[in-house]
Amino acid sequence: MSEVIIYDEILIIGGGLIGSSIARAVREHGAARRVVMHDSDEGVCARLQALDICDHVDRVCSASQADLVILAVPPGVIAQTAEKILPHMKPGAMLSDVGSVKANVVEAITPLLPGGIDFIGGHPIAGTEQSGPDAGFASLFADRWCILTPSSKTVEDSPAAQKLQNFWQTLGSRVEFMDAAHHDLVLATTSHLPHLIAYALVGTATDMETVTKGEVVKYSAAGFRDFTRIAASDPVMWRDICLQNKDAVIDVLGRYIEDLTALKKAVRWGDGETLLKEFTKTRAIRDKIIDAGQDVAVPNFGRDAPEDGTGN
Amino acid sequence: MSEVIIYDEILIIGGGLIGSSIARAVREHGAARRVVMHDSDEGVCARLQALDICDHVDRVCSASQADLVILAVPPGVIAQTAEKILPHMKPGAMLSDVGSVKANVVEAITPLLPGGIDFIGGHPIAGTEQSGPDAGFASLFADRWCILTPSSKTVEDSPAAQKLQNFWQTLGSRVEFMDAAHHDLVLATTSHLPHLIAYALVGTATDMETVTKGEVVKYSAAGFRDFTRIAASDPVMWRDICLQNKDAVIDVLGRYIEDLTALKKAVRWGDGETLLKEFTKTRAIRDKIIDAGQDVAVPNFGRDAPEDGTGN
Repeated sequence: MSEVIIYDEILIIGGGLIGSSIARAVREHGAARRVVMHDSDEGVCARLQALDICDHVDRVCSASQADLVILAVPPGVIAQTAEKILPHMKPGAMLSDVGSVKANVVEAITPLLPGGIDFIGGHPIAGTEQSGPDAGFASLFADRWCILTPSSKTVEDSPAAQKLQNFWQTLGSRVEFMDAAHHDLVLATTSHLPHLIAYALVGTATDMETVTKGEVVKYSAAGFRDFTRIAASDPVMWRDICLQNKDAVIDVLGRYIEDLTALKKAVRWGDGETLLKEFTKTRAIRDKIIDAGQDVAVPNFGRDAPEDGTGN
Repeated sequence: MSEVIIYDEILIIGGGLIGSSIARAVREHGAARRVVMHDSDEGVCARLQALDICDHVDRVCSASQADLVILAVPPGVIAQTAEKILPHMKPGAMLSDVGSVKANVVEAITPLLPGGIDFIGGHPIAGTEQSGPDAGFASLFADRWCILTPSSKTVEDSPAAQKLQNFWQTLGSRVEFMDAAHHDLVLATTSHLPHLIAYALVGTATDMETVTKGEVVKYSAAGFRDFTRIAASDPVMWRDICLQNKDAVIDVLGRYIEDLTALKKAVRWGDGETLLKEFTKTRAIRDKIIDAGQDVAVPNFGRDAPEDGTGN
């Protein structure tokens, strides 16, 4: 890794899980001399102050001194937050974000940019099902991928893109550059679709007239409980992601419904051969995910086996 | 808990994750003076012998001495295995199974029963995504539910049902009696549907023409990886479960596809209100699952946070 670039001042707008984790990580790795945070919610500002994870909580959000401004707000308000902050930013500063959808944001912000201010979209592939300033922690980005989506103005080998790459590497991440539209399709597949599936399952299971909610909870270790973890994620953020990444989400969700319908037909026709074929091709990809260091190999995610093992 | 009933001899047919875990648990809790195992696969028999988890590996499967015979074979061959073994069982002995589908099995086996032999279906809600004799462990059933489905001949308060309840309690389980058809609907909801959903997602994601398998693996921590765990479960067992529980599986899968289609419509129409409503009702059920001791509360199942946190 190249030398760490130390910013004079970083402003993080949004004090949730991601924003507060960035503040903690910047302090831990010495990536800035001063970290300022802002959140539109007074209660969040108070928590940020109490947690003492930054140098200053700015309740009016004056960006004038920051060399780097990171928007860590829900995807639905990234563009309008950028519009508000850009006129106050100083020449030579850089704007970035951490949203899960990129093409919309790049498209909305690029025409707003004054000369001398760069914008590069960012998306750290990191998080938990928890939200808010208390849920963050400094090592959240360690060994995780961060995808950067440069525009035509800020190409991959531009000084701005290289500087932002350095920032995320300093926080422990592995950085990948990607076209914004392709990012949205990849994440629709590996993230947005899985979340929609999980939210929908919880809805279907709890709406059954003949199975009580108590039974769903009691026998959840048979598979259901896994889905409730990601379905416990922040609902506002996920509403925004679905709406901001509409085309890709509709595309992958449509394909998924087709695949499920084909499985349903195979069950109805007693077509064991098709079921076995579909169920057999899945183990290999889990092995690859474990080999790539993206999940743990122990049974049941190591939750409770072998001490008091459980699962399907 | 009532006094432990010690069997003279227990025969376990099927040496996979569940069968081999029962053998280990019986030995650990002293639930039988002698444990005999059989598996139709020669290689599995050799592993059972090498693992030394039972008193005798019987390659021809003569059940004549067993007081309790447990069928731990895939759901698709439970009834035919029962048909083979029943003529050799001694009067007063009991037959049970551990399959994930119950109505079909109870219906198929009940007319085959000779006088003096009882059959009660059983289903321990326990397991991992791993398979085979090496994957088992003695504490697999500790604090997990085991559902027993008595028939008209062996009602809940019959000596046979009480004796089987005692057996599972000795292994550490909590026992619930349930009508076989209701069991199949409850498990279709909490287990069979989640597995089908996970298998289908892995299929959809790896079939995308525009997203490479490498990208799916690389960015799987964004949600996808969770689904690959249960989609790594034994494909033969899951084919059998789908076919044996056909009606309930088609019912819940049909409802689920309807719910997903409604979500897709909400995304298409930009109906944020509906999305937010659906995404908001899910956190409460996760809290209940955690309160009921059926999952851990730590973020990301405690896999890697806060040491090197990761997730959505």
